[in-house]
Amino acid sequence: MRLYFYPAACSIADHIALIEADLPYDLMPIDRDKRTRDGRDYLAINPRGFVPALELDDGSILTENLAILAHIADHSGKLLPEDALGRSRALEALSYMATTIHGGLGPFFKKAAEAEQTKARNALTKGFAFLDEQMGEKPFLLGQSISIADPYLYWCLLAAAQFEIAAPERLQVYFERMNQRPSVVRARAEEGLSPTE
Amino acid sequence: MRLYFYPAACSIADHIALIEADLPYDLMPIDRDKRTRDGRDYLAINPRGFVPALELDDGSILTENLAILAHIADHSGKLLPEDALGRSRALEALSYMATTIHGGLGPFFKKAAEAEQTKARNALTKGFAFLDEQMGEKPFLLGQSISIADPYLYWCLLAAAQFEIAAPERLQVYFERMNQRPSVVRARAEEGLSPTE
Repeated sequence: MRLYFYPAACSIADHIALIEADLPYDLMPIDRDKRTRDGRDYLAINPRGFVPALELDDGSILTENLAILAHIADHSGKLLPEDALGRSRALEALSYMATTIHGGLGPFFKKAAEAEQTKARNALTKGFAFLDEQMGEKPFLLGQSISIADPYLYWCLLAAAQFEIAAPERLQVYFERMNQRPSVVRARAEEGLSPTE
Repeated sequence: MRLYFYPAACSIADHIALIEADLPYDLMPIDRDKRTRDGRDYLAINPRGFVPALELDDGSILTENLAILAHIADHSGKLLPEDALGRSRALEALSYMATTIHGGLGPFFKKAAEAEQTKARNALTKGFAFLDEQMGEKPFLLGQSISIADPYLYWCLLAAAQFEIAAPERLQVYFERMNQRPSVVRARAEEGLSPTE
């Protein structure tokens, strides 16, 4: 599998998940002009233009973070909670983060007007409080083991920190712990990020 | 299973999917004050406040449209494309619609400033063009049979029409065809919508 990514973008969730799932992968960075490092037009690969995209072994392209993360779990048989509702709870958490958290970060990425940012900040604070409550005292969002929801939550917290959006203390502790995890250390290094960025 | 819904909200996708999947269900409408029809506080059922929520037979509550639709498919063994990548393609389409289309409709639901609505309208036009291209000449978004992606696309087109956001002609024809489908006719009737609304 080949992951098309932009450094520190939400594609780092898939990057971490590929490592955690022990799947073989290679990486293809995209630049701001939507060219791949090997000089191709990324829009010819993924016309919608977003990262991540995952090129499967048969050459087909899968897009959308949630779908790629679910594919990694299905393909590896790893990274899903073990209870009966595990798969549904993972999709529920990913969908919530993709819409409410990632969507809520839009005004910051787009450098929207201050009033819009203030509104978005309040909604994000509420959103992170729900995730904090869901985490509770568990080591990972959905239980005792890491699932596909965690790499995406890691990225949500990475992006929030970038815009100085405060997360509840428990999520901050979780974020620091994830930063020390070998998969995260390796993914960050492979994307050219500083160890403490 | 019990579906908590608001009439004509995106919960109609799950309502249609339950009918298409032939699963037994009952319905519990929510009002604008977040009270259920039987007088309970909906926030005690789903603290995040959104519809839909699906109450499973063991009493647990599943939220997030995408997760509920995937659960309906898993539970019924229906509504997924049959090819190897079928599940991934369904999640990909649902994630795209939940983030880009549903998220893109936000400024209209929130009655945002005109400039913001204009920007959102342009992004939605592009988003629907991608979905139109994906549909091509197939009868349903992902192939020859209906999948969980279709009831959600139906709702996206229903909401777009409400805000006079034009969809490409092929999607309009699809929308009209879906409006005639027995599951959609029944869901609309059960939500108290007019047959042609």
